[in-house]
Amino acid sequence: MKERMKEVRRETGCELCHLTVPVVWQDEKLSVILVDDAAYPGFCRVIWREHVREMSDLSHDDRLLLNDAVYQVEQAVREVMQPLKVNVASLGNVVPHLHWHIIPRYADDAHFPAPVWAQATRRTDDEVLAARRALLPDLAAAIAKHFNE
Amino acid sequence: MKERMKEVRRETGCELCHLTVPVVWQDEKLSVILVDDAAYPGFCRVIWREHVREMSDLSHDDRLLLNDAVYQVEQAVREVMQPLKVNVASLGNVVPHLHWHIIPRYADDAHFPAPVWAQATRRTDDEVLAARRALLPDLAAAIAKHFNE
Repeated sequence: MKERMKEVRRETGCELCHLTVPVVWQDEKLSVILVDDAAYPGFCRVIWREHVREMSDLSHDDRLLLNDAVYQVEQAVREVMQPLKVNVASLGNVVPHLHWHIIPRYADDAHFPAPVWAQATRRTDDEVLAARRALLPDLAAAIAKHFNE
Repeated sequence: MKERMKEVRRETGCELCHLTVPVVWQDEKLSVILVDDAAYPGFCRVIWREHVREMSDLSHDDRLLLNDAVYQVEQAVREVMQPLKVNVASLGNVVPHLHWHIIPRYADDAHFPAPVWAQATRRTDDEVLAARRALLPDLAAAIAKHFNE
């Protein structure tokens, strides 16, 4: 039986309160999406469902739950995407609704070793990007598996 | 009685294995420092002492301990620096030794609302920066208080 979603506080005009993209996994508390970024296949986002601003606004249990979700996604990203490094960040300056970026990084990516928010320094080979993009169904499956275990 | 520090794995040439900056707080597992960044007074770093690459390389208990430390520092930063937003990130592309950045952000800072790793778009007023810098002893005290409670 499908569990009924509890109503969460939503803010008008907040794009993370009203997700229009497909989710890879979702429960009452959080959603996981694959970010549509041509230069970064495997870029994932964990989005807290309630409109909360900072990690430290969460209750103790919710904070651990969110940290565990980021950890599960990081593990799935490592297993499937085999990155050189994982970058994890919660910024929210533009959209102050708690969410985490989990980004697989490679020596040949557009910004390495700089953060993805710096100026791009190269263009990754199209075939390499296509090969990484081909892993996305496996990544989605791995994320779902991590959360269902 | 001062507790004896357990030996941790260190890597030759890793600047985070061999910290040369003063720490605000330290125990067997992690160190907290105030980052010397003229544009970002209140920028803190939580550095795992052992040479570990990713959050998901930690044991369950260590991961929770590190998450809690980042949370304590975020709270201290909010209390003392009163930022508009806090940015939290673990990147490690240049120095692949697990560490977290905790950065107080303001509407008038050098990059807002972009991440601090983007191109700077303004110069914050010197007096404003000086006033924020004057809070650093309070921030150091607040961090120590959080960890000692």
